[in-house]
Order: sequence, then C-alpha cells, then structure tokens
Amino acid sequence: MVSRTDLANAIRALAMDAVQQANSGHPGMPMGMADIAVALWHGELKHNPANPKWPNRDRFVLSNGHGSMLLYSLLHLTGYDLSIDDLKQFRQLHSRTPGHPEYGYAPGVETTTGPLGQGIANAVGMALAEKMLAAEFNRDGFDLINHHTYVFLGDGCLMEGISHEACSLAGTLGLDKLVVFYDDNGISIDGHVEGWFTDNTPQRFAAYGWHVIPKVDGHDADAVSRAIAEAKTAGKPTLICCQTVIGKGSPNKQGTHDSHGAPLGADEIAATRAAIGWPHAAFDIPAPIAEAWNARAKGEALEAEWNQRFAAYQQAHPQLAAELSRRLSGELPADFAQYAAEQLQAVDSKAETIATRKASQNAIQALAPKLPELIGGSADLAGSNLTLWKGASGVSKEAGGNYIYYGVREFGMAAIMNGMTLYGGFRPFGGTFLMFSEYARNALRMAALMKINPIFVFTHDSIGLGEDGPTHQPVEQTATLRMIPNMDVWRPADTAEALVAWQVAVEHRNTPSCLIFSRQNLAYQPKDAQQLADIRKGGYVLKAEAGELKAVLIATGSEVDLAVKAQAALAEQGIHVRVVSMPSPFLFDRQDSAYQQSVLPRHTPRVAIEAGVSDYWRKYVGLHGAVVGIDTFGESAPAPALFKQFGFTVDNVVAQVKAVL
Amino acid sequence: MVSRTDLANAIRALAMDAVQQANSGHPGMPMGMADIAVALWHGELKHNPANPKWPNRDRFVLSNGHGSMLLYSLLHLTGYDLSIDDLKQFRQLHSRTPGHPEYGYAPGVETTTGPLGQGIANAVGMALAEKMLAAEFNRDGFDLINHHTYVFLGDGCLMEGISHEACSLAGTLGLDKLVVFYDDNGISIDGHVEGWFTDNTPQRFAAYGWHVIPKVDGHDADAVSRAIAEAKTAGKPTLICCQTVIGKGSPNKQGTHDSHGAPLGADEIAATRAAIGWPHAAFDIPAPIAEAWNARAKGEALEAEWNQRFAAYQQAHPQLAAELSRRLSGELPADFAQYAAEQLQAVDSKAETIATRKASQNAIQALAPKLPELIGGSADLAGSNLTLWKGASGVSKEAGGNYIYYGVREFGMAAIMNGMTLYGGFRPFGGTFLMFSEYARNALRMAALMKINPIFVFTHDSIGLGEDGPTHQPVEQTATLRMIPNMDVWRPADTAEALVAWQVAVEHRNTPSCLIFSRQNLAYQPKDAQQLADIRKGGYVLKAEAGELKAVLIATGSEVDLAVKAQAALAEQGIHVRVVSMPSPFLFDRQDSAYQQSVLPRHTPRVAIEAGVSDYWRKYVGLHGAVVGIDTFGESAPAPALFKQFGFTVDNVVAQVKAVL
Repeated sequence: MVSRTDLANAIRALAMDAVQQANSGHPGMPMGMADIAVALWHGELKHNPANPKWPNRDRFVLSNGHGSMLLYSLLHLTGYDLSIDDLKQFRQLHSRTPGHPEYGYAPGVETTTGPLGQGIANAVGMALAEKMLAAEFNRDGFDLINHHTYVFLGDGCLMEGISHEACSLAGTLGLDKLVVFYDDNGISIDGHVEGWFTDNTPQRFAAYGWHVIPKVDGHDADAVSRAIAEAKTAGKPTLICCQTVIGKGSPNKQGTHDSHGAPLGADEIAATRAAIGWPHAAFDIPAPIAEAWNARAKGEALEAEWNQRFAAYQQAHPQLAAELSRRLSGELPADFAQYAAEQLQAVDSKAETIATRKASQNAIQALAPKLPELIGGSADLAGSNLTLWKGASGVSKEAGGNYIYYGVREFGMAAIMNGMTLYGGFRPFGGTFLMFSEYARNALRMAALMKINPIFVFTHDSIGLGEDGPTHQPVEQTATLRMIPNMDVWRPADTAEALVAWQVAVEHRNTPSCLIFSRQNLAYQPKDAQQLADIRKGGYVLKAEAGELKAVLIATGSEVDLAVKAQAALAEQGIHVRVVSMPSPFLFDRQDSAYQQSVLPRHTPRVAIEAGVSDYWRKYVGLHGAVVGIDTFGESAPAPALFKQFGFTVDNVVAQVKAVL
Repeated sequence: MVSRTDLANAIRALAMDAVQQANSGHPGMPMGMADIAVALWHGELKHNPANPKWPNRDRFVLSNGHGSMLLYSLLHLTGYDLSIDDLKQFRQLHSRTPGHPEYGYAPGVETTTGPLGQGIANAVGMALAEKMLAAEFNRDGFDLINHHTYVFLGDGCLMEGISHEACSLAGTLGLDKLVVFYDDNGISIDGHVEGWFTDNTPQRFAAYGWHVIPKVDGHDADAVSRAIAEAKTAGKPTLICCQTVIGKGSPNKQGTHDSHGAPLGADEIAATRAAIGWPHAAFDIPAPIAEAWNARAKGEALEAEWNQRFAAYQQAHPQLAAELSRRLSGELPADFAQYAAEQLQAVDSKAETIATRKASQNAIQALAPKLPELIGGSADLAGSNLTLWKGASGVSKEAGGNYIYYGVREFGMAAIMNGMTLYGGFRPFGGTFLMFSEYARNALRMAALMKINPIFVFTHDSIGLGEDGPTHQPVEQTATLRMIPNMDVWRPADTAEALVAWQVAVEHRNTPSCLIFSRQNLAYQPKDAQQLADIRKGGYVLKAEAGELKAVLIATGSEVDLAVKAQAALAEQGIHVRVVSMPSPFLFDRQDSAYQQSVLPRHTPRVAIEAGVSDYWRKYVGLHGAVVGIDTFGESAPAPALFKQFGFTVDNVVAQVKAVL
C-alpha cells in the first residue's frame, strides 16, 4: 500500500537528486511543500497529463518558482511528457527543465515563474479569465468552463508589493475559484523572517475579502485535503496557510535557509534517504509509487467526459461553440485582414488631427466589435488613457464584462494580463501613463520572455503631457522598452499609424506590444497607398526628398510633424532631405536589407528626432549623425513651452541637419 | 477671531485659484484635505519656515503629490520663502511651483512625489533614519534628534504595491513616530473606488502591526487633532483614516472625480467662494488669516531652543557633535581622498581574481569603518549580494544598527533608501539581483531626478549567473539603467574597478549610482599608476596596441578579460588592437573630447563586447562597428556553456574584428 508520505517522498527524492546532479538549485521548497503537493495533485487536481492544453483543466501556478523541481517532479510523476532523463538534465543547456519553470519548455508549465509575486498575479488573471469565459460561453446545462486555479507561494511572494495589488483585486472581484497555498516556513534567504516580515498574513488577506484557513499542518496531507474542500465551498478566494518545515526530511538542514538554494550534498542526501525511509537509488521511483502517482487514465477520462459535453454543446449552440474554439485557438476571424484594410482606408480618408491616444480609442472602437476576445482595462486612468469604448462593460464580482478597472495597480495589471493571455480565449489590453510602465516593467519583460501577446497601452508619452512635470514625463521609457527582447514598441505619428499599431498588435501571436500614444493632438500626415501598406514595415519614407538627397530625418510620434516642417524649411534653402517615419523599430529591423536601405541609404547622413533619450538613435544615425533628443529630465510647463525649451523647433532641426552635412 | 475653517478655506481658495490660473492641476485633494492640513500644520508641526533644513524638524511628505497646491499653500501661508507670485506661477516653466512637488524647487518640499506610493515609502525611510540617527547620536540629557514624520496619502497610494512593502516593514521595525493620514474620500480617477478597491484598510494596517484610528471626520480639524495626539502615544506607526469629501466646498463638483484633476472653472469657483464664505479676490489672503497661519516666530523659537541644546551637546560631546555636523552636511572625512588612494594601491597589489560582488564586499569592508554614514542592506539577498561586512549590525524594532534587512521588497527598499538619503546623515546602499532592479526601477529614477546619491548594488549581472535562467539573467538591464538621466552606472571588470566604483559612488553628491557586479570570478587586469587613476574617468586604455592600431575593443565587466584574450589572439595574426575598459560610460561621456579621443580615436573601427543588448553600444561603435552582445533572452545552463552559446569566445571576437576592418 502506497502511503501519501511515500508519494511525498518521491518528490523529495527527485528534487534533492536533481539539484545535486545539477550542482545548483533549490531543494528546500519542494521538500517542504511535498505533502501539500500530494494533497492537491494526487486526487484533487483536474487535469489530463496527455493533453496539457485541455481547456477546462485546473490551472496550477508555482509562484515560488525557484522550487521548480517540485513542479517537474509532479509533471513527471503524474504522466506528462517529461521523462526521468529530462529531470536528469535539470538546469542544463537546451533542456526542458530549466532552473525556473519556463512556459513553453516542459508541458504543463502554465506560466514562467521565478520573479517573486508575479506567479500569484498571473493566477489571479487565470482565475479571472475562467470566470469571464464561463460567463460568456457557459449555457444552461453546459457548464463547459468550470475549474479551479491553484497557487503555491511563499514568504517572498507575500512580501512583494505585487501580491498586494493582485490579491486585493482578487478579493474585490470575488474570484472564488482561486485557492492559494502559503508555504509558511518562516525562512527566507536571509534567514528567519521575523526580523523583516511580521505581517499577520491571515488578517491581511481577510482585509482583502478572502477566506483564510490558518494554521494548517502542511505536512499532514489529509489536513491539507480538508482545507481544500473548505476552500472550494468558501465562495471567496481562499488562502490556506500551511505551516511547513523547509527542506523537510533533511536531518541536518531542514528548517534552515541552508536547504533553500543549494544542493544538500551527497552526505546529507544519504542521511535524508535514511531518515525518510527512501532506500531507492537516485532518480529511481519504484513501480508501485509510480503507478499510484500516474494520472493519465483519470485525466483522459476527465477530458473524454468534457469532450462529450462539448460535442453536445456544439449541437445545441453551434455558433457559440465555433467562436469558443476560435477564441481558444488564438486565431483571428478569417476576414480580419480585409476588415483591417478597410478600417485603414477609412482612417486615411478622415485624415483627422487628434491625439494618438484618441486615435487609439478609435482603433479600439473599430476592433472591439470584431474581436470580442479583446478585454480592456486601465490602472485607474480610463479617461486619460482612453481605453474605454462603446460596448465596454466593467467586470465586477457579480457580472462578467469586457473591461477591467484594475485600480492604481500597474504591476498587478500587467501580470494579471499575462495570466489572462496564458489562460487563452482573451486578448487583454491595459493602459497607464508611459511613465508608469516602469512600475510594471518586469511583467512586460515576462510577457516578452514567454512569447505571449498582451497589448500594453501607454499614453502621455513625452514632455508633450506638459504641466504634470518630470515625474510624469517619459524621457528614457520608450527607448528602454524597445530594448526588451521580443517586445514590439510602437510610437505612432498619426491616426493611420495608430490603427496599424493596433492591427499589428492583435495579429502578433508570440510577441507582446507596447503602444505608445500622445496626450496632445498630432497632425495627420497624408499617405499614398504604398505608404499606408508600408506602415507595418515599422519604418517607411513618409515624405520623399524633392531634389538631390542630402540627409534623412528619422522621427517618431509627435516629432514626425516637426520633421516634415523642417524638411520644408530646408528645401527653401535648397537642402533636400527625406522624412522617414519609424513607428516600430522592432519591425523595421526585421525587414530585409534591401528594404531597409531603400528607406535609409547607407551613406546618407541621418538626423533622428524623438522627444526622448538620444543614445537609442545612434543605432540608426551612427557616430556622425545627429539626434534631436532629451538627455535630461523634463520640466513642468505647458507643452508648447517645453518643446521650445528642449529644442524641438524647426530652427534647431535645420541647424542639426546642416551640422551633419 | 480666525477659525480653523477660515484657515482651511485659505488653502481651498489658493488651490482652486492657482489651478484655475494654470488651467491645469488637481484642486480636489487640497480642498478635501484642507481641514486635516490645518490640524497638522497649524500648531502641531514642529518646523522653522525660515530654515527648511533645520535637522530636528518634523518631516512632512505629501505622498499624493498631485495635490501639490496643498503643500505650496501651506509653505506660503506658514512663512516659507515661497511668495504669492510663486503660487501664481504654478505649473509654469522655471517656476518654483511645478505640477508635482519637486525636491530642490520650493523650500520645504522634503521629497519629490507624484508617482503614487513612493512618498509613503520615502517617509518610512525618513522615520527610520530619525530612529537610527537618534540611536547613534542622542545622549542622556541630549535628545537632539526627536521628531515625527507625517504623511498624507490617498486611495492611490494604498492600492500601489509599494505601500504594502514599505508599511509592512515600518510595522516590523516599529517606527512609532510615523503618522499617516489617509484621505479616505472614496474616489479615484476612474470614479467611486468600490468597483476596484474594497480593502478593509484598517484591518490591513493592523495586520502590519500599526495602530489604526478609523473613521475620523476629516473635516473636523479638532477630531483630527485628537487623533494626532493619540497617534503620538501609540507606540506604533499610526494610520489615521480620515473620511473626507474630495473637492470639499465646491457645490457642484465635491464628492466626484470631476474635482480631481481639472480646474473647477470660473463659475464653479465663484459658487465655491459663495458656499464657503470666502469673498476675497483670487490669491488674496486677508491679513488676520495670514497672520494666524504664519509660523515663523514659533519656528525660530523652536530652532533657537534646539540650537542651544546643540551648543551644550558640543560642549559635552565635542567629537560626536563634530561628526553629526559632518554627517548632516554630507561631507566626506577630510582625509578621504588619501584613504581612497591607499585602498586602491592595496587592491592593486593584491591583484585578486574574485567575483566583483566579492570585490564589492571588500570595498564595503574598507569603506564602512571610515564612513559610518554607510547604511547597508539587501532585499533578502545579503548572502548573494555580499552586502554584509564585519561590523554590520541589523536594525530592528529594539535596536539601531547599520544594516537593514529589507525583506523581499526591492521597490520599497529603493524608495526607503531615497527617504533616508533625503533625511540626511546617512548614505544608504542596498542590494538585489540586477534583474530585480526592474521591480525598483521608478525609485531609481526618482533618485536621479531628485539629484540625491543613494547607492544601488546589483549583482548577478548577466548570463554569467548561469542555471537560474532567463528570468534571472539580465540582458537589457545594464543598458537601460544607463539611459536614466543623471544615473552613474558602473560595471567593473575587476577588484580595482570595483573599488573605484564604490569610491566614486560615495563621492557623488548629486548623482545616484548603480554598481553592477558579477556572480562569477573575474581575473585581475594589471594596471599602471596612470591606468589606476584613469579608472575614475569611466573609460581608459587598459591594454594598448602592440603595433599599428587597427581597431579598438571596448568592453565592460566580465567581458574585459575576453577582450584582452582576443587582443592576444589577434596580435598573433599581426592585427593590433587596443582594449578599452569602460566601467562607467556616464563618466567617460563627461570627460573632455581630447581625453575621449585619446581613448577612442575618431576613425578607428570599434568593436564593443558586453553580455547585454547591443543597441546601447552603437553610440560608441557607430553603424560600421560591431557589437558582441545578446539580443535575445538568456537560457538556463552553467555559465561557461552560456558564454560559448552566446558567442562570447575569442574566436567570435576575432571574427567580428576582422569583419569590421
């Protein structure tokens, strides 16, 4: 008879052995949470190891991602396509078992974790997506979407500010199928936490409107099972506080941070084997234990039952079923390209001079009816970011909807968006001021790293926001966002570029987008059909030179119109320059070199104009070009005074061009 | 007889008039918090308007900085050097009254606020600094440092994650002289907060170990005064929850977000004047009210009494008094330069091959005994960042010390460091992994914006950290930190550069520093006396060419040794190149052009080598140079495998050099 302790010890053994083999990693958490993992993963979790993408599976997020061997052990043991050889390759180059769980590497890893606090926020996004997708697609008798989201987290996640943002919102939205297991082991890397972490965590979560189950013995799997049962009927998000011993089982290191982030060592592993009664060799799981863990048969039955239900749903609600399938596949509607082209024609015909944040709102208005998977939101700046549209309705505890009032929680918003995106069926976008992209920065990076496609809307993009001053005026933000690998950053110059930015953003499958918009009005730049088509190449010739080409002006956003005016002033002096609009360097850099050189001839002097740090533009203008930029902080003043103050004038651009000729 | 309501209405009038005159700004908060401001600033606050730098003043932080007109009104009314003409210039170019309170502009502004949540974190740093400075310098009978830190904040600050980090730590450290006024008006920019913010805030703060005074009528100044009295004897940090009406006094806009962030308009201002009984013209404060507000006489008496105490302290404890004066002035010890030079000689003689994080610890060990103002810390990574030294002792609720265990709270740490720096007498440094600089990013920027000089220590600086993988491997972080205006970013190559980085960082008066260190060992690069001296120029010729110069290799940190090896390999092929080490581009860019060209001859091809995004280096190598960099995310694997995988090999550098010749 295989006991629950045997099951837990299988995890302990795999974790300590894999860390030892890699000679790096974190055995303490998997060993400490092994019994909790048994309670959840052996019997409770609804999943199908044979199909990690089954839509109605329970979601599991390891927010304390350094304990990755816990997850890899569970995936292996329950029957995912993750072999013992994969575990032996833990933390090795090109393995499926990297140091932290990486989305897209091992099957069953729902999100990439490691940066603390983001996993729980991703999970809030998943639980929210579950609730919203159920509200949208379930019908009487067809409970198609109905599952839980489970999270493991530790003291570190709870200290991080993002845990406050995400868990507070989870309480407000009443995400009652979110169940979080707190690994309350009293240890963080610096030692016993009482010197720096003395929160009454149950009280804190009660203040968020959560159900809290305190003081559960985290080494009594049956007690944890009872807590899970309680959580599932609580009607609120639930925090189960599990008192555990880090490194449980290691006679000399358990309960200390020595077991946290380093291999136990051969001697201590041998002592642990003896102490826990696990005589088996490294990576050897005896057949009875392996069989007890294997969840493939149960998982396949679960999915088969669901597939039957879905087939009946297809019969009863064929259009809904088709739409749900499309949404879960991530495909755009078949006629999207044509629809997009028509929209662009319409915008070009209107030729409006409006703020690009308003152009963004118009684009949302055009796209949202076509793409019900779009889920809007803002970090308490809906009226400034212009992220609302006709047809938007707020999500609340009581009701589904398609717009999330995130509150003043930028980091939480971005990580929740990542979670919703990972969940599937939704394409979230969320807004804040460009400056406060910094609060969310690491979540933006995580989206790029995971190759997922949320859309981050950042308005008030420069000194052009005026009087709010340097705390709110982005200077280095656009440039630094562009430096995140796999992040497509758009800074459109007018309504047409803003619309294309949105279209490309929704078309991206594996790339997140930052769409950067002005507060102030920007003139429409007339374009011919080829130019309209070339916007999506990221950079294109907006105004060709009228005579012998002497220099190229490269500009983005609000500075494109300045470039056009400088071009005219220079032409009057017989100096002919070209204006290149470069809304997305990301895409321009991905064009073939023939196209790139047709836009930027190799030996023509170049001057870049952008109301931001100049260093970024050296990649296009080189050592001998010029940049009209801002390398200090802004100031508080009306926008026109600021643009003059910082040299964004025709005279200055003309002077800079002459200087490089 | 001037009533407290009259006093409050003076604030209301100035706020609505100045916002109207600027035609932008936030009248709602000053009007809503005016009565609370009266309770605190009229009678309670210990300050001297004639000397905003009096060391023992109470500190006041307006964490909801958009309500800047509240603070400007108070500074003007109580007698600071801020005239009514200054108020009329609200939000205009080069005025002393920018849109958000900016440190260094108006006297009495203790910190720059606007980015929500950071003000309260700054204030936690100030309250902590007060406690630590008192513990260090107060003596029996000489209660030199003994004052309160007061904070105004709103719903926005409380939603931000950083408020969790900072307030949780404030509870743990028992900062009992911190008193926070929560402007509980139920409104944020998107409207009534109940749709997105339903925390039981008193319960939340009780969970942090704070004293909470709930449900105070924020329009009853006497009730607020009673709450302040209670707070001062609570023995814990205190949150006073003040129920207020945003825009109080405006008949048609109070209680709605219409009064939050836009001028009331002339008609509504007239209606407000009538409603609150304020018949005076715009910017006109009747003499009795002005006199009642003026705090100069009282403030001068307060400081005079303190000056007497300090004079007696000088008599009794002359060395302590001299040291306190030095510390508060921000001056280094007179013999620091000589001491620093000796240290550098010693490090050069040792020529150790160690990780630069270890070299950093050695530098701390050398500096700390000389500079007791250094206050160390780490966001739960003391043993990884190597920020502890012999002689460090942890700060706790019960005891002073010189090392802060910040817990897993990167953003909170950085903003608390900013607050301690602003307070004076301390030079905080704090560590985390370079990746998690992103969690703290906007606080780093705020330090640079405020022209203050905290020292941020970031270790594990590249793929060289190995197995923890891409979530922990910085790629774009060093480059993007360099793009923050007024931020000195160092990435030293060896022990000598690491020491100079620390020395320069402590010497900076108006510039914060990011010191970026490796996890792995780096070889010492032999240097002559001139090279040792040139390190502080930010970039210098480390290994001159042995023949006709064909190219310059520019490298930083762990890649310098690779450049040296590539130089040797190229020399064997008769290709002579120069190796430039560039630990601080910030400082190199500030050298004269003669020096710059002596290091980087204008027309010599250049190849930069850094294990990070390549775009940054285009400013040095131009369009036709090459960069050996990383423009994707990292991978989980042992470091040597990664450096090979990503092209950091002698062969690849040699090939890149040949390609640019």
